[in-house]
Amino acid sequence: MTTDFGTRDGFTAQMKAVILRINPHAQIIDVTHDIRPYSIMEGALVIKGVSPYFPAGTIHVAVVDPGVGGPRRGIVLRCGEQSYVGPDNGLFSFIITDSPDWEIREISNADLMLANPHPTFHGRDVFAPLAAHLSAGVSFSFVGPTVVNPVMLDVPAPVKTRDGVRGEVIYVDRFGNLSCNIEAKRLEREVAAVEVGDTRIPGIKTYFDEAPEGTALALINSFGLLEIAVNRGDASKALGVHLGDSVRVCWK
Amino acid sequence: MTTDFGTRDGFTAQMKAVILRINPHAQIIDVTHDIRPYSIMEGALVIKGVSPYFPAGTIHVAVVDPGVGGPRRGIVLRCGEQSYVGPDNGLFSFIITDSPDWEIREISNADLMLANPHPTFHGRDVFAPLAAHLSAGVSFSFVGPTVVNPVMLDVPAPVKTRDGVRGEVIYVDRFGNLSCNIEAKRLEREVAAVEVGDTRIPGIKTYFDEAPEGTALALINSFGLLEIAVNRGDASKALGVHLGDSVRVCWK
Amino acid sequence: MTTDFGTRDGFTAQMKAVILRINPHAQIIDVTHDIRPYSIMEGALVIKGVSPYFPAGTIHVAVVDPGVGGPRRGIVLRCGEQSYVGPDNGLFSFIITDSPDWEIREISNADLMLANPHPTFHGRDVFAPLAAHLSAGVSFSFVGPTVVNPVMLDVPAPVKTRDGVRGEVIYVDRFGNLSCNIEAKRLEREVAAVEVGDTRIPGIKTYFDEAPEGTALALINSFGLLEIAVNRGDASKALGVHLGDSVRVCWK
Repeated sequence: MTTDFGTRDGFTAQMKAVILRINPHAQIIDVTHDIRPYSIMEGALVIKGVSPYFPAGTIHVAVVDPGVGGPRRGIVLRCGEQSYVGPDNGLFSFIITDSPDWEIREISNADLMLANPHPTFHGRDVFAPLAAHLSAGVSFSFVGPTVVNPVMLDVPAPVKTRDGVRGEVIYVDRFGNLSCNIEAKRLEREVAAVEVGDTRIPGIKTYFDEAPEGTALALINSFGLLEIAVNRGDASKALGVHLGDSVRVCWK
Repeated sequence: MTTDFGTRDGFTAQMKAVILRINPHAQIIDVTHDIRPYSIMEGALVIKGVSPYFPAGTIHVAVVDPGVGGPRRGIVLRCGEQSYVGPDNGLFSFIITDSPDWEIREISNADLMLANPHPTFHGRDVFAPLAAHLSAGVSFSFVGPTVVNPVMLDVPAPVKTRDGVRGEVIYVDRFGNLSCNIEAKRLEREVAAVEVGDTRIPGIKTYFDEAPEGTALALINSFGLLEIAVNRGDASKALGVHLGDSVRVCWK
Repeated sequence: MTTDFGTRDGFTAQMKAVILRINPHAQIIDVTHDIRPYSIMEGALVIKGVSPYFPAGTIHVAVVDPGVGGPRRGIVLRCGEQSYVGPDNGLFSFIITDSPDWEIREISNADLMLANPHPTFHGRDVFAPLAAHLSAGVSFSFVGPTVVNPVMLDVPAPVKTRDGVRGEVIYVDRFGNLSCNIEAKRLEREVAAVEVGDTRIPGIKTYFDEAPEGTALALINSFGLLEIAVNRGDASKALGVHLGDSVRVCWK
């Protein structure tokens, strides 16, 4: 389960209760419920990050769903050996982009939902029961008609510059580490420096302690992305850098 | 499990460890550990909200317990096909009010607790082991003597006015949505507007996106209560409205 | 699992996914993921606090690991009937100090890790798979060579004064309660007062409600430590007392 519901209000517990009523043997893992409210991009990045580690047969239920109750579709995406249940609003963009082999169905079979789904809580009344039914063996083909044009996020792409690459911060994690939209493979030449705001950071390090405590460094993080960090500190606060800020890589 | 213990300190893990030592097959679901510290009302509302979704046989362990170690009783409430274990301080008021069919026992059987319960942590030393024993098949009648006068919360009731209903905000969720003590069934006439603070909101909507982004709307939420929200925003912050503030419904 | 990863970013879910791929029957309990970032002391105290309640065979995976990727070792500690997997940085100091009977191995067997462990995320690539293999029956002796000199935290000790004991605040919990490095057994004489900052608190109480609402009290908490609390309030905020502040116990 990946949601922006937080853990205060019992919303995620209602979803789990619904799942366990349908399939008492379901094994439920919380990916996170602390996606920034309404941030489809953040949800999409986390889902991309965790998917490679989950076993075959995993069913992801993902709910970051500001358009709930309106015309947006509910979908099930099947990709590799995992499935993804949630709103058709771009939340699964990276899964779709990263794989040539996917199939989507629109959720339309009312037998797989709770009766009279509440218009503000499809997580509980549509997505949770649907995932539970799939986990209990209901066939993907029963979900509803095929979808070929899922909604995709408009993801900023890094651009080549005269002497390097320019991207932006697309994720700030709990430690204040700054993930950029620059994948490791884009660093095809040796890096002289990474610049962000007023800070110029020399070269690429491998781990945090290679920089003195409290100083900034750049490395390739565990998502395979260029990351700017401060050793034992909070890079976002220390450097005054936030989501969407520009990052420049300069070749040697 | 529903508590105000937070998740920082390992308190809830101690409770889970105690449960699993007694019943290694127990399936433990966190409802929330983020009830506002000492807020029995908030705990009671969350427990009411989640209960209908849990399967028969569920045992709720609920600990919002500022009076721990003092004269307040510990109780087990049996209601429908679910049980509730916790302090007798009003935490189960809504469960009791909503059902004619309930039975309560005072926790007095020391065989079902840890030895020498610590006076500040009955969650770990009394309620968790008791719930584990119940889940492992110990009979309700072994818990202790019958209780007929459980402590009940003093819940504010909405009042009829000349041209509508007046209630108050009784819950603010993670998104800043404002739940009122006005149930859907109290809206027996067509609603012209809902007023809160300086804001007048026309009519009742069905889902968030029916209002333009950033504007206020009123709807019936997934608890069956009148809710004031701001589409893709935080109504509490945007409207400056908080717990206990007055809400007025005006008939057409 | 005890970490400082928070629950926002999916890091802990990656660890759980790795564990379940290796041992689908593993039962995973979150102790906490909200250790203050990089605070080895806080992690060590929580691990000490929860350990006595977990069943035999429990494998703790603990990651508060600012030195990840550098020269610090990864270790497995076997102590009593539980095991502890994590960095060799003092995180298990209290477990080692409290027991004469322990054995440690350095993690060096690459067959028990993911391939090419990422230098910033040994939680996912080294500690989680190792714990999963142990839980699935792999022998402790396969982990790596014996370690006899684990890194230990420099823990402040309380000191005897002319008329009592002086210690310090070593933990502030979610409620603002202040745990001191003064164990119950150090209070060998009757206590006249506990002093902290400008506040003088008479005697030792047993439970919170023995003090009037909003006033300070001292008691022995559920960790067996001297604790300063404010009944139904936040002692840290109300008294302006923080981690590391001095606490004085005065005999009668």
